[in-house]
Amino acid sequence: MRLLVVNVNTTESMTKSIGEQAAAVASPGTEIVALTPDFGPESCEGNYESYLAAIAVMEKVRAYPEPFDAVIQAGYGEHGREGLQELLDVPVVDITEAAASTAQFLGHKYSVVTTLDRAVPLIEDRLKLAGLTDRLASVRASGLGVLDLERDPDAAVAAIVEQAAAAVEQDHAEVICLGCGGMAGLTEQVVARTGVPVVDGVAAAVTIAESLVRLGLKTSKVRTYAPPRPKQFKAWPPAN
Amino acid sequence: MRLLVVNVNTTESMTKSIGEQAAAVASPGTEIVALTPDFGPESCEGNYESYLAAIAVMEKVRAYPEPFDAVIQAGYGEHGREGLQELLDVPVVDITEAAASTAQFLGHKYSVVTTLDRAVPLIEDRLKLAGLTDRLASVRASGLGVLDLERDPDAAVAAIVEQAAAAVEQDHAEVICLGCGGMAGLTEQVVARTGVPVVDGVAAAVTIAESLVRLGLKTSKVRTYAPPRPKQFKAWPPAN
Amino acid sequence: MRLLVVNVNTTESMTKSIGEQAAAVASPGTEIVALTPDFGPESCEGNYESYLAAIAVMEKVRAYPEPFDAVIQAGYGEHGREGLQELLDVPVVDITEAAASTAQFLGHKYSVVTTLDRAVPLIEDRLKLAGLTDRLASVRASGLGVLDLERDPDAAVAAIVEQAAAAVEQDHAEVICLGCGGMAGLTEQVVARTGVPVVDGVAAAVTIAESLVRLGLKTSKVRTYAPPRPKQFKAWPPAN
Amino acid sequence: MRLLVVNVNTTESMTKSIGEQAAAVASPGTEIVALTPDFGPESCEGNYESYLAAIAVMEKVRAYPEPFDAVIQAGYGEHGREGLQELLDVPVVDITEAAASTAQFLGHKYSVVTTLDRAVPLIEDRLKLAGLTDRLASVRASGLGVLDLERDPDAAVAAIVEQAAAAVEQDHAEVICLGCGGMAGLTEQVVARTGVPVVDGVAAAVTIAESLVRLGLKTSKVRTYAPPRPKQFKAWPPAN
Amino acid sequence: MRLLVVNVNTTESMTKSIGEQAAAVASPGTEIVALTPDFGPESCEGNYESYLAAIAVMEKVRAYPEPFDAVIQAGYGEHGREGLQELLDVPVVDITEAAASTAQFLGHKYSVVTTLDRAVPLIEDRLKLAGLTDRLASVRASGLGVLDLERDPDAAVAAIVEQAAAAVEQDHAEVICLGCGGMAGLTEQVVARTGVPVVDGVAAAVTIAESLVRLGLKTSKVRTYAPPRPKQFKAWPPAN
Amino acid sequence: MRLLVVNVNTTESMTKSIGEQAAAVASPGTEIVALTPDFGPESCEGNYESYLAAIAVMEKVRAYPEPFDAVIQAGYGEHGREGLQELLDVPVVDITEAAASTAQFLGHKYSVVTTLDRAVPLIEDRLKLAGLTDRLASVRASGLGVLDLERDPDAAVAAIVEQAAAAVEQDHAEVICLGCGGMAGLTEQVVARTGVPVVDGVAAAVTIAESLVRLGLKTSKVRTYAPPRPKQFKAWPPAN
Repeated sequence: MRLLVVNVNTTESMTKSIGEQAAAVASPGTEIVALTPDFGPESCEGNYESYLAAIAVMEKVRAYPEPFDAVIQAGYGEHGREGLQELLDVPVVDITEAAASTAQFLGHKYSVVTTLDRAVPLIEDRLKLAGLTDRLASVRASGLGVLDLERDPDAAVAAIVEQAAAAVEQDHAEVICLGCGGMAGLTEQVVARTGVPVVDGVAAAVTIAESLVRLGLKTSKVRTYAPPRPKQFKAWPPAN
Repeated sequence: MRLLVVNVNTTESMTKSIGEQAAAVASPGTEIVALTPDFGPESCEGNYESYLAAIAVMEKVRAYPEPFDAVIQAGYGEHGREGLQELLDVPVVDITEAAASTAQFLGHKYSVVTTLDRAVPLIEDRLKLAGLTDRLASVRASGLGVLDLERDPDAAVAAIVEQAAAAVEQDHAEVICLGCGGMAGLTEQVVARTGVPVVDGVAAAVTIAESLVRLGLKTSKVRTYAPPRPKQFKAWPPAN
Repeated sequence: MRLLVVNVNTTESMTKSIGEQAAAVASPGTEIVALTPDFGPESCEGNYESYLAAIAVMEKVRAYPEPFDAVIQAGYGEHGREGLQELLDVPVVDITEAAASTAQFLGHKYSVVTTLDRAVPLIEDRLKLAGLTDRLASVRASGLGVLDLERDPDAAVAAIVEQAAAAVEQDHAEVICLGCGGMAGLTEQVVARTGVPVVDGVAAAVTIAESLVRLGLKTSKVRTYAPPRPKQFKAWPPAN
Repeated sequence: MRLLVVNVNTTESMTKSIGEQAAAVASPGTEIVALTPDFGPESCEGNYESYLAAIAVMEKVRAYPEPFDAVIQAGYGEHGREGLQELLDVPVVDITEAAASTAQFLGHKYSVVTTLDRAVPLIEDRLKLAGLTDRLASVRASGLGVLDLERDPDAAVAAIVEQAAAAVEQDHAEVICLGCGGMAGLTEQVVARTGVPVVDGVAAAVTIAESLVRLGLKTSKVRTYAPPRPKQFKAWPPAN
Repeated sequence: MRLLVVNVNTTESMTKSIGEQAAAVASPGTEIVALTPDFGPESCEGNYESYLAAIAVMEKVRAYPEPFDAVIQAGYGEHGREGLQELLDVPVVDITEAAASTAQFLGHKYSVVTTLDRAVPLIEDRLKLAGLTDRLASVRASGLGVLDLERDPDAAVAAIVEQAAAAVEQDHAEVICLGCGGMAGLTEQVVARTGVPVVDGVAAAVTIAESLVRLGLKTSKVRTYAPPRPKQFKAWPPAN
Repeated sequence: MRLLVVNVNTTESMTKSIGEQAAAVASPGTEIVALTPDFGPESCEGNYESYLAAIAVMEKVRAYPEPFDAVIQAGYGEHGREGLQELLDVPVVDITEAAASTAQFLGHKYSVVTTLDRAVPLIEDRLKLAGLTDRLASVRASGLGVLDLERDPDAAVAAIVEQAAAAVEQDHAEVICLGCGGMAGLTEQVVARTGVPVVDGVAAAVTIAESLVRLGLKTSKVRTYAPPRPKQFKAWPPAN
């Protein structure tokens, strides 16, 4: 099967990293196609960028010329999943929700550790809409921007590990979700410090997408995610 | 003061209608500027269209060349308000939330009557994120598309009145919010049939925006709606 | 239009102050009539006093001899709004709910800072009944009594500013509501310290009441706030 | 021990009936003192009347000249319990909460059947503040006024039994609370029709009050229900 | 009347202690029969043990040869109450729920103080299923095992008192429930330190069970707690 | 990898059927071992039976002599998952939760269709504890017992299809979970009637268990699911 794993920002190195994470856990026979949007911000760290990325991801997926079996939206706490679900019959898996769903099988409560403090409300809102907050202990921020994860990995590790430990010790989290597409490499260190299972959203999403495909399950089309009605669009998609 | 009232779709006649509704309730001294996005769908009836409209609204507002005091996003159950709040210091008022907030001052529970059934979950999700569902009795759909409201007003009236009456009689709503930018003219008929107050989102939003401006209140910038961080955007905004 | 702004306690100086706050934000053409109950406590700092004040406010409004367009109940976290809504057709606006509704347009979460710790549960309960707690970060108390605000304003400012800052820094509030009818003068200091918008309940209530009147909206009479049924009252209203 | 059972309205025959219900279940050695407020409405069927009754009940209890061990507020869905708790050290038991607490020991979900439809939101709000709605299946109204229960008992029985049956069959209630101080005599008929346990609030409250007294438990005074602070009251209590 | 008070573990000394607590508050004419399961763990400190105890308690009660009027399950945060309710017509009272229900009559919020930290989620889950978490301030653990309460009572007192004080001061609890069958003797010390009412679950359960019996109320049999359907059991009950 | 799939009842034919369902979706290289408890009821249709089954499942898994990688508890709405999680390091997947988690990736709301009406509250409670009720539209019962599914498959199909259709049309479910271990064969008919995705719990659980194993994730041991403390057990496990 072929899974499209779509980065939400336009930083190619991050797409590459996400694609490698996905490929590392994919089953034999699963082809991972990592895509970068054609337009939008170099990183998503707020609502404006996230809304723009949502559209850029949708357009990228719509333009993909080959058949595929599922799509993974590889941004943490981002907008847009519902739009992709309307456009496609195949399953769409958001990594925020994939990580939380997976975490709930492993411990009584889970926390998310993300980068910037301003991303916390976005993640909380995504999880609220997804109905996944009852067992959410906390969303904590390390205070680092998305691209800092690539620029200064050591500081990133230290700051994230500290927040993960606080989530376990103060908020009673029993599982940690790493709340950023670029955090996957940090899993080992967080496990070592906290002793709790650490879920990477991209990896979780790959297994969930594969599972849905294997079970023959597709997006429900009876109401919320019915295909868009035929209509006129003005000046869209963009010419550039 | 100057209020930007931004239609979410690209149908100019609807922009005109929304602008007239807004002007009809604006205080003396308030200038209403009704804007139509430069790109996007002719109507918003689902998530894909709504996400696209969110971006189109933001770009339109960003490009507006004159000073203004507040922005009203004149689409019911649409995405994007949080993005506008990041981009602007002035208040941003979503008509879905404006109607609900207003309704809560008038009765113990309120319902929303909207057009298509598929819009119901979008409205529910918007109200959930806004923290306005505790006193929500129901969101009901008349089964008509947005543009049907202009094409066959008589059928629209009949269908909406029927759902409003059901909301009052079966769901115990004590106030009705008309859940569509183009429904404003129907208020009188719904009041006549149900005997309950009927809130039009555009009108409610105008008074709330004016109030926030008069009180000197602006969007909080300390966390969720802080301005976007400086960064590179690829191929955006679109050239067309 | 004429707005009745009813103090909940019998301290005339506080009524005067409330009336001035209201007048300061009222539109041209709005007449503010500040009323003091004929009986009841000199300040409301608990349930017994608040229940008594609720009745005293209702009797005062019932006895008002001239027409009026809306009523503002100018006590924070007090009982009684639902009773006024039964007695009147015109809108009734509680300042606790007015402040919270207004705050929700400005930030992702809001906190209330009030006077005595024992008032916190009353405010929480009022907001719970009003369906306005989903985005409530916290209710914090400065530890000062209502009348201390008049007696020692400097200490009041310091204590309130401290709690407001804690609400922003520890509870992630993005907006502060000043939770006491007599706190209005402190807005400036709290803004200076925290950098977040500060909402005064009386001012917010005036703009909301004016808006409802302008929109021609009145209290729903179909169920919860239907007029009292005709019946015998024993020894009421009191002779004194 | 001595229990004050306070009617919320000024209809002496209803006080007598409530007192008899209470005495019928009281333990040997428990003295039931049934009190009627000195002022207020002949029945409580809405917020205005309920707020007035709240104060009338408090004044009656304050004026009671002998020692007592607990107070039962014998009105369904009425205001005021929190005020009594401030005024007294001894336990205060509201019959709405007593019935619901008792019902939760008997079945997975419970419903309340009350008189007028307009009382439904009052009861819902009382149960919401009491934290007793998670297992509430529904509050249903028979459409009869409080005094109809005395005037036309046969019709009252029929209407209440019908709603109780609907609560069990449609709302999945497994226990019924009779939501009116005057409904106690109807228990037998409702049991016969529905086959589920039926809880009478007055009876439940008597056993709970007795239990609290026997366990030596009193109202907590550390915060919400601390005694009122010493202060001036204007023209209160009333002279009549 | 005869009440069965069933310990959840197989430690006879704890059964004796529980029986004495129960007898100390039982009404004249109430016979307390304290039972120890025939199999299972010496203490319940986790889910495996609690599930096993649930079955052991049920089998012990099923085998009891004499008539009885109600059953008290005397373990804090344990599984099994719903099973007993299916097996019996008489009321079944769980001490976790009895304590919480009682606490809610005494203060605005309550906390539970228990032994091991790992028991906290069990208690939280029990209260969640019972619909008793809206007014729950916190569940706190003293860090001591169940049997430590017998082995080193002084340390137990100190640790529990410390957590109770923290619940009042930090979590705003106004009532404390002692969350362990063996904690009853500590009530006095906790009251002395915190000044709030302290509820012992066994004592509360005895009065509730007696009340239900006096009121003639039994477990509802219409749905959730209907008797088990007739069927084959393999190798059960155990031969030993 | 080896997955233990444990039936909750002692009916071997149902174990066989469950094992076949599991094997049908297992990846190449996954060995499915279907186990039947050594004691307990022939079917689980209530709390008593479910509690007994919980223990029987745990004992069966404890006694399994070979290594294994994950356990699937193949009963719908049953007790016991938390106990298994304490006993094991490997992941434990409950089919109720597996189905719900999977459904949430496919539609905005989901419903569960089960057999007996009395099972509905058990399923609701399981989903409540699992934090999976926010997007639950309804739990509906076909009115058939567990073993009827084997005895009269045609009637089972008809009754289940009818409830599934009602869930979609009346409750706005967009996905159906078949809420019984023995319902798997009915998927096709329900899909044909409703047009929505249908999730079988056993199949969903197999893919989730495989995913957790592939990702190297195990049950968190820091708090709720820490191993049982060493202690004495009386007369357990049973000799028979």
